[in-house]
This record gives sequence, structure tokens and C-alpha cells, in this order.
Amino acid sequence: MKLSVYLAGQIHDNWREEIKNLAQQMDLPIEFTGPMENHERSDNIGEEILGKQQDAIAKDEAASSINNLRTQILLQKADVVIALFGEQYRQWNSAMDAATAIALHKPLILVRPASLHHPLKELANKAQVVCETPEQALKALAYVFEN
Amino acid sequence: MKLSVYLAGQIHDNWREEIKNLAQQMDLPIEFTGPMENHERSDNIGEEILGKQQDAIAKDEAASSINNLRTQILLQKADVVIALFGEQYRQWNSAMDAATAIALHKPLILVRPASLHHPLKELANKAQVVCETPEQALKALAYVFEN
Amino acid sequence: MKLSVYLAGQIHDNWREEIKNLAQQMDLPIEFTGPMENHERSDNIGEEILGKQQDAIAKDEAASSINNLRTQILLQKADVVIALFGEQYRQWNSAMDAATAIALHKPLILVRPASLHHPLKELANKAQVVCETPEQALKALAYVFEN
Amino acid sequence: MKLSVYLAGQIHDNWREEIKNLAQQMDLPIEFTGPMENHERSDNIGEEILGKQQDAIAKDEAASSINNLRTQILLQKADVVIALFGEQYRQWNSAMDAATAIALHKPLILVRPASLHHPLKELANKAQVVCETPEQALKALAYVFEN
Amino acid sequence: MKLSVYLAGQIHDNWREEIKNLAQQMDLPIEFTGPMENHERSDNIGEEILGKQQDAIAKDEAASSINNLRTQILLQKADVVIALFGEQYRQWNSAMDAATAIALHKPLILVRPASLHHPLKELANKAQVVCETPEQALKALAYVFEN
Amino acid sequence: MKLSVYLAGQIHDNWREEIKNLAQQMDLPIEFTGPMENHERSDNIGEEILGKQQDAIAKDEAASSINNLRTQILLQKADVVIALFGEQYRQWNSAMDAATAIALHKPLILVRPASLHHPLKELANKAQVVCETPEQALKALAYVFEN
Amino acid sequence: MKLSVYLAGQIHDNWREEIKNLAQQMDLPIEFTGPMENHERSDNIGEEILGKQQDAIAKDEAASSINNLRTQILLQKADVVIALFGEQYRQWNSAMDAATAIALHKPLILVRPASLHHPLKELANKAQVVCETPEQALKALAYVFEN
Amino acid sequence: MKLSVYLAGQIHDNWREEIKNLAQQMDLPIEFTGPMENHERSDNIGEEILGKQQDAIAKDEAASSINNLRTQILLQKADVVIALFGEQYRQWNSAMDAATAIALHKPLILVRPASLHHPLKELANKAQVVCETPEQALKALAYVFEN
Repeated sequence: MKLSVYLAGQIHDNWREEIKNLAQQMDLPIEFTGPMENHERSDNIGEEILGKQQDAIAKDEAASSINNLRTQILLQKADVVIALFGEQYRQWNSAMDAATAIALHKPLILVRPASLHHPLKELANKAQVVCETPEQALKALAYVFEN
Repeated sequence: MKLSVYLAGQIHDNWREEIKNLAQQMDLPIEFTGPMENHERSDNIGEEILGKQQDAIAKDEAASSINNLRTQILLQKADVVIALFGEQYRQWNSAMDAATAIALHKPLILVRPASLHHPLKELANKAQVVCETPEQALKALAYVFEN
Repeated sequence: MKLSVYLAGQIHDNWREEIKNLAQQMDLPIEFTGPMENHERSDNIGEEILGKQQDAIAKDEAASSINNLRTQILLQKADVVIALFGEQYRQWNSAMDAATAIALHKPLILVRPASLHHPLKELANKAQVVCETPEQALKALAYVFEN
Repeated sequence: MKLSVYLAGQIHDNWREEIKNLAQQMDLPIEFTGPMENHERSDNIGEEILGKQQDAIAKDEAASSINNLRTQILLQKADVVIALFGEQYRQWNSAMDAATAIALHKPLILVRPASLHHPLKELANKAQVVCETPEQALKALAYVFEN
Repeated sequence: MKLSVYLAGQIHDNWREEIKNLAQQMDLPIEFTGPMENHERSDNIGEEILGKQQDAIAKDEAASSINNLRTQILLQKADVVIALFGEQYRQWNSAMDAATAIALHKPLILVRPASLHHPLKELANKAQVVCETPEQALKALAYVFEN
Repeated sequence: MKLSVYLAGQIHDNWREEIKNLAQQMDLPIEFTGPMENHERSDNIGEEILGKQQDAIAKDEAASSINNLRTQILLQKADVVIALFGEQYRQWNSAMDAATAIALHKPLILVRPASLHHPLKELANKAQVVCETPEQALKALAYVFEN
Repeated sequence: MKLSVYLAGQIHDNWREEIKNLAQQMDLPIEFTGPMENHERSDNIGEEILGKQQDAIAKDEAASSINNLRTQILLQKADVVIALFGEQYRQWNSAMDAATAIALHKPLILVRPASLHHPLKELANKAQVVCETPEQALKALAYVFEN
Repeated sequence: MKLSVYLAGQIHDNWREEIKNLAQQMDLPIEFTGPMENHERSDNIGEEILGKQQDAIAKDEAASSINNLRTQILLQKADVVIALFGEQYRQWNSAMDAATAIALHKPLILVRPASLHHPLKELANKAQVVCETPEQALKALAYVFEN
């Protein structure tokens, strides 16, 4: 058995590498996917493929149509979604990905600092597992493979 | 034909009243629902029903379980969802409600100031209609009833 | 028992009135819905609600987001869809509505002149009933109420 | 991860070869499927398998039953659908395939000349990505595989 | 609470009247629907609406497209399906309606003489209730309303 | 807005009456349904409708086919399910009803004495609200109607 | 691309072998499944696994529970269903399998002698392809693989 | 063809080994999954991953969130579920897994001593196969692979 896991959330530090390294060390048969982590590429992908747009809103609309294409394809193929929230940024697309996962009956593992418990309480209540570090999220996945 | 419309989003001003009043003036057969708008009641509902909890996280978990009960019931009965985002607050539960609506194939009308176009671009791309004022959202609904 | 029937297709003659009148004469408990039939209103609705757009494509995108809001709401409430095709116009949105109805398991009654049998053959094959006049479509619906 | 992509739309030039060649050059793990591209074979397949039919309509019905068998099987296996529209032909079956893809929650990439923006506006509004050349469609897919 | 019950099966005796009379005597809030019980009307409905067809097969295809329109609409609105099988006739459309009900998660009450237990064993195994008389089927429905 | 609530669980005391009375006092627009509460009637309903069975297992199979007919119909019509567990009895059908509700996306309110937290922990984790008294369950429902 | 095809229908001649041989000759990547073709084994499987039953009806119920287990598993894994009807036998389980396939959105190829067109007209109307020989059914499948 | 089978139920004896050994002897292409069978590990997994909890209920909630993560992932991947009930323990999570399987349209094989027929009658009525020993359950699966 193999699992496909989508890593939703912020792209400002290397938390995805941490998880992938741990999975490799534990030899877990997991394929990880996620959003474009190059922030500039993600913001500009609309114009890079479709050409110069008229203004910032049109540029955003073009970029998000292609980012959402990526997310929709990869999320539909995922067995589990891990979503990480941090203190910074609004992260509305992370909340969107997390809620979409739940609505598609993909179990959600929510990773967030305890300090964010209040604004994330409704999402935490819907998540299957709530934890504070990427390592804990991976341990929960590792448990699925134990005999 | 009647429509049921869930009004997701912030509970810090009277935008819902504005929409309800307009609908009444236009005599539209719409039933509006939404979250508990009394902020304190919403935060304390867990302890009010289930009793004193051990700490702030447990209190939040208790409250969110009952707030989510309300949202799940009302959202499943809705034909359309209007979600309003403002400059303040993290509004992750608004993003969660908006994304859940989309995943359940309820059309979403997203209301947000143009200044928020960048952080909301992925959600805007998935919404059926994007506008800037509650009045525009209602006009879009009114159009559904025109002959 | 009542039925809700969505009348998809061209808005250039009064075929919908013909069907509604016949239904009234036969005293059938059917509620009819359909697209905005005022062509200009339909083309301009985006700018009328959201304000002046930058160019013709942006104007079309704004209009179609609101026209599709209407169609999605009404189609989801329909028990049956009647789609009428004529010799003129490309009618791609009619084909879109007809195919959406089928995919949502709403039975489709396709009305088209026999002369269009070749370009419509794949859609005809998926329709539950294929006929040539609005009157025939209504007779098929009337049969559902017979004892 | 591999993707299966259905190439809907006209069969009158070699746009599918263009896409397949580009995918091969970029070494993308994509399996492409699509309709029968031999126009005559497609029109005659009903009689070739089921024998001579009584008239042109019966011949079309026989052919479309087998063409739709092919489309239904391949579309259900696809992760993404690319639909290309051109100036010529009515292409109602292309619109049907595109709308079916959307209703089945397969993301749609719509390729069309800008000149067709008006008649395709409702379909464009429902597509996940709208572009003007097959190469742009493939670049959007390539982005899904980028790290 | 009201129930809608579709009465599938043979149209050669008055078993539906028996059930409706009993329901009326017991004052049960049930709306009954079913196929066209006038056999000739059912066989000819295709030609009556669509005109003379080329041969017996085309006549049957025309009739069945309209009979299936009726069945699809009424079956989708039903809460429960009762299917009655007798010794005579092939009743393949009854088996089709019964299996469709099960696949749509409508509970099936199967009424058949004990002598038919062997050829109906797979369908009986899938039915929610198996009995021998229409009266027993109605008693099972009456039990749903008891307090 | 009205709600339909299915009251799953033991039938050995009058907890359902307690809930119904409270709802009436609070004037809540809720229709309550539930299993046959007359234990003997529930155990004998198979033989009462279908006649004497060969042994105790066949008698149970006959009874459960009709009890499950009732549950399936009423559960499918419910917006919310309340399931009450007590110290006595195995209550496997209560657990079945509760799990079915969750799988059908009906929110579950689980009522159980705190002493049962260990054997019910997996079900509690899936429930939307967990409480200890029927009165608390009703208060959670009342909150849905508050403005 | 590979297809899985379930061969429903009578088990009294070797039509399944005919289809499998043709597929092998044409080198088609198809995996065929179907019911137990050893009639005696199929009728006795209940008692062979569960032990002697009390009477013929209980024996049939035991056998059908295991035959239906087999059919449900294999049908859910199938991409396409071919159902063959002949002049003999009641074949109600074939009709059940065919209708189940349609309700699960698996395309159905119906094979029947033209002489059966009348009793099979409703099923034929729902099938994606109707033909008279197993060879024609296989040719329709082969067409799906053509380029 | 391969099958994935989830083995729900008690973890107090080695019935799963018995089934796996038999499957190996019969050379059946089945992958078996199931819950954590180390009872202590299962009860403590919440604290082992998430750290010390405040009390026994919080410890159970933490453990069950991770046990349910495992069950949800493995159950969704399963083609069939076998659930074994014994005389001891309340086994409400087994009943929950069994009912979830049925609601997800996974066929359920219920294994229980005949002495439990009465409390399990509603679940038995919903199971596809009911038997008394793990060996019988495996024989039913073996039958699916027979030609």
C-alpha cells in the first residue's frame, strides 16, 4: 500500500523538506505533492503562460486559474492532506485547501502553533488530527503503516 | 420558487441587515441564514451547554463543535452562499465555509474590497461571482428571479 | 406531485411561451424556469451589476459569471430539462446546459429540426427523448402525469 | 504520478499531434486519449459494426451510440480534459464533452481563438483555464509536475 | 411526514388498486406513482407523440424513451419502491426498475409468489423486505408511521 | 426552516419524551422520528407481517428486515441524528445508526454518560457534538435556530 | 490503458469464451470477469460454505448472498458491462446486473436476438450500445482502443 | 485482479492471522489491513504522538483521532470489509466500522457466533454475507476468484 499526501499551507520555510526527509528516514511509501513553492513563479505563472495581463487583478486571476488547476488535480489524487498554518500571512488559500479536503472526505491533519487555537477552532474541530509540528503529523501517518 | 442563502463571514458590522433589508424592499422570496452573530455567545456556547472546560483550547473545541453543528445544518440547506471578507481578522472559518460551499456545489458569491484581491485570488477564482459590496451580491441574486 | 422544468436554448423566438401556454391549457402542475430571455440584459448584466469593464472579453466574463449563477441555481432545482436547438447561432451554452443536465441525472428532452440530426447526433444519443417541436416535448411531460 | 488527459474537440487538423509531441519533448508522464480522429470511420462506425441502417438518422444514431461509448469510457478515466474550439463547424459534441467534464469535476482547459470569446463565454467561465493555443494548454499541465 | 412510493411491476391485474385502497383505509400519508397501466397506451406512446415509426423496433424504441422518461422522473422522487413479480411475462423492465431503486438507495419491497423464489433469489437478497402479497408490503410501510 | 431529527438508541426509558417535551416548551420547529419503541412489537414485527418463521434466527431476520426498512426511510429524511447510549445492553444497532448517519453526512449528537468514554471513544471522535444528557443535545439544536 | 469488462447474463453456452478468444486474437488489453459459470456450484455455494440450510428458500438465500458478494465486487471494478439475453430462462439477475451497471454509470452493451426487442425495449433504451452478437459487442470495445 | 480487505473487530485473539494464513495457503491475491492490534499502543497512541493529555477523556480523544485516521484511510482503500464480533467487549467501534463500510458500498462479511444473532440482527440484515467462522469468510472471498 502506498499513500499520496498533499502538503497544503505556507511556502515561506522548508517544512515540506523536513517532512519528506523524515518519511525517507522511516522508509514510508508516501508520495508527497503540494503547491508551487517558488513564490514568484506562483504569482507570475498566469502571465508566463497566457501573456501580459491588463492589471494586477487580471494578473492574479490568470495566476490563480493555473494554481487552482494544479491544486485540484493533486488534491483529488491525494489520500490525506496535511495543512500547516503559521502566525504570518492570511493563508486563505490554505484554509480553502483544508476545507476542500474535508468536503472531499480526505482526512485532514492540521499543524498549527497552539497560539493559533482560537482563530482556527472551527477548522481544528473538522480536522481528523490536530498537532503542532510537522514531525507529529508524519508520526500519525507512520502509524497507519504499522502492524 | 424560493431560495435559501447562507451569509458567511465576519460578524463585526451589520452587513447582513443591509442585505436582508434590500431583499425585503425588492420583495425577493429568500430565506437568509448564517452564523451566530453575537460574538460572545458564539465563543461561550460550548461552556454554556456543556459546562466549564479545562482550559482555553478545550473551551474553543467545545464552542466550535456546536458552531460547526449550526453551520453544517444551515449550509447543507442553502442554495447559495455569500461570503464577505474584510481587511480585519483572519476569517479562516469564513474561508472554510466558502470552500465547503464550493465543494458541495453551492454557488459562492464572494464579497471583498478590491484591496484584498491578492490574498483572496484562489478563492475568487473558484467563486461563481466576485463583487465588492453586499448590494451587488443581492443584485446578482435578484437577477435569478427576473423574467 | 409538481415538476420543475428548465427550458434551455435559444432566446430568439417565443417557443417558451408556446410551451407555457400549452401547459396551462392542459392544467399541468409544472413550474418553468430558464435563462434571461432579454438578450441585451443578458449580455450587459455583468457591467450593470459590477460596473464598466476594461474590454469586451472582461465584459463577457462578468456577464457570464452572473448568467451561470442563474443557470446553476435553476438547473439544480429542475426535475427535467428541455433544450431546443435551431438552425441559427452556435448555441454552445445550450449544449453546455443540456450536457450538464445529463451529467446531473436530470432527464433531457431534446427539441431540434430533423435537419440538424447529424451535428447533434451525440447529444441526441444521450437525451432521454428526441423530438422536433415544443408541443411534442410537452406531450411527453404530460404523459408523466397520466393515470 | 501520471496524468490521463482527454483531448476533446475538432478532428480537422493535427492539434493533438502538436500537444503529444510537446509532451514528449518535455518528457511529461501524460497519457493522451480522445475521439476517433478518422472522420469517415467515426461517421460510419455504427453501420460497420451493426450493419446497414434504414436511413441517415438511424445511421447517425448507431454511430453516436458507439462514439459515445468510447467517449464515456475515456472521459471517466481522464484526470483533465482539454477542449479546443475553432471558427468552423458547430462542435456541439465538443461542448457536450467539455460540460460533461466539468460536471464530473474534471478540470477543463479551454483552447479557443480570442475571436470566439462571445459565443463561448459561459463555457469559458466554467473552465478552469482559458487559453488560445494548444501549447499554452500543455504548459499549464507541465506546471502541475514542476517542483 | 409523507412518503412517495413507486409501484413497479406487471400491469395485468389491479394489485395497485388493492394497495391504494388499503392505504386509504389505514389513512396513511402516502402518494403512489407507477408506470402507465394502460398497456396499449404504453406500447403506442412513442408513435402517438412522435409519429409513425419505420418498423416495430423503432416503434418500441420511441415508446420506451417516453416510458423511461416517466419512470426516471417518478423513481427519483420516490422514497420507497414496491416491485411485484408474477408467474407470467418476462418482466425485465420490472427487474430493471427494482435494481435501479436499490442502486439509488431507495429501499425495495419485493412481492412475489414463493414459487418464484429460485429465479428471483439474487434480487430477493438485495431487497430490504421480501413478501408474498401486496397487503404485506403495505403493512411494512404502515409500520414506518407507527409510534 | 424546520428540522427533522432521528432519535437513535435504547428504547428502555422515556428519554425521547423528555426531548420532545423540551422542544415543545421551547417551541422549536422540529419533527422527531425514531425506531419502534414497543420492544415486543419490534421483536415480533417480522412474524406479525410475514407469518411464523422456522426458528429464532429466521424470526430475527424477518423482524430486522422491517425494522431496517423503517430506519432507512426515516434516517434518510433526517437532518440530524441524536444517538443515546447507556450502561446496559449491547446497542449495536444504535452504533450502526450513528455510524450510518455520519457516513451520510448527517451531523451526529452523541449522548452518553462520561463513564462510557473509553468504549465509545472512536464514535465520539466522529460525532459533531458529544454530551451527557438529552437536554444538552436539545440545547445544541436550539442554538441552530437562534438569531 | 486497460479495461475491465464484466460479462453478465446466461451461463448455459460458451459465449464468454467466444468473446475472450476474439479479444485475445485482437490483442486487446481487457480483463474479463463474470458470474460463476458452473451452474451447480452457483446454486450450492451457500450450503457448501455455510452448511446445510433448512429448506430450498433458505438454501437460495444463502447462495445468493455469496453470488451477490461476487457480483458486487466485480461489477464495482468493471469499466464496462456486457449483458447477453437469450430466448430461454427468466434471467432476472441478468436484468438486475444490467440495470445496476447503468445506475453506477458503467456503460452497458446489451446483446440480444432481435426477436426479444419488445420485452427488452426499456433496457435497450438505457443501454449505451445494443447489438445481436457477442462479436459485435467486442468490436465496439475494440473501437475504444483504435487510434 | 487484487482485492484489499479490511479486518474490523476485536483484537484479543489471532483470528486475523488465521485468515491471512489461509489466504496464503490458497494463494489468493488479497492484501489485508486492519486496526492497530497492539491494544496498549492503540490506547496510548494519542499521548505518544501529541504528548501527555489532561485526563483520561482527553487521552482517549487524542488516541481515537489517530486510530480513526488509520481506519478512515484503510477503509476507503478496501474493496471488502470483514467484521468479527465475539461474546466479550462492547465492540462499538467494530459496529461503527461495519456500518461505515455498508454506507460506503463496500460489501460486509459479518462473522459472529450464532449465540449473538439477536443483538446483531439489524447489522446482520445489512451485511452481504453472515457466517460463524473466519474460515467461512475467507471461502466466500475465494469464491470471487474462482473461474
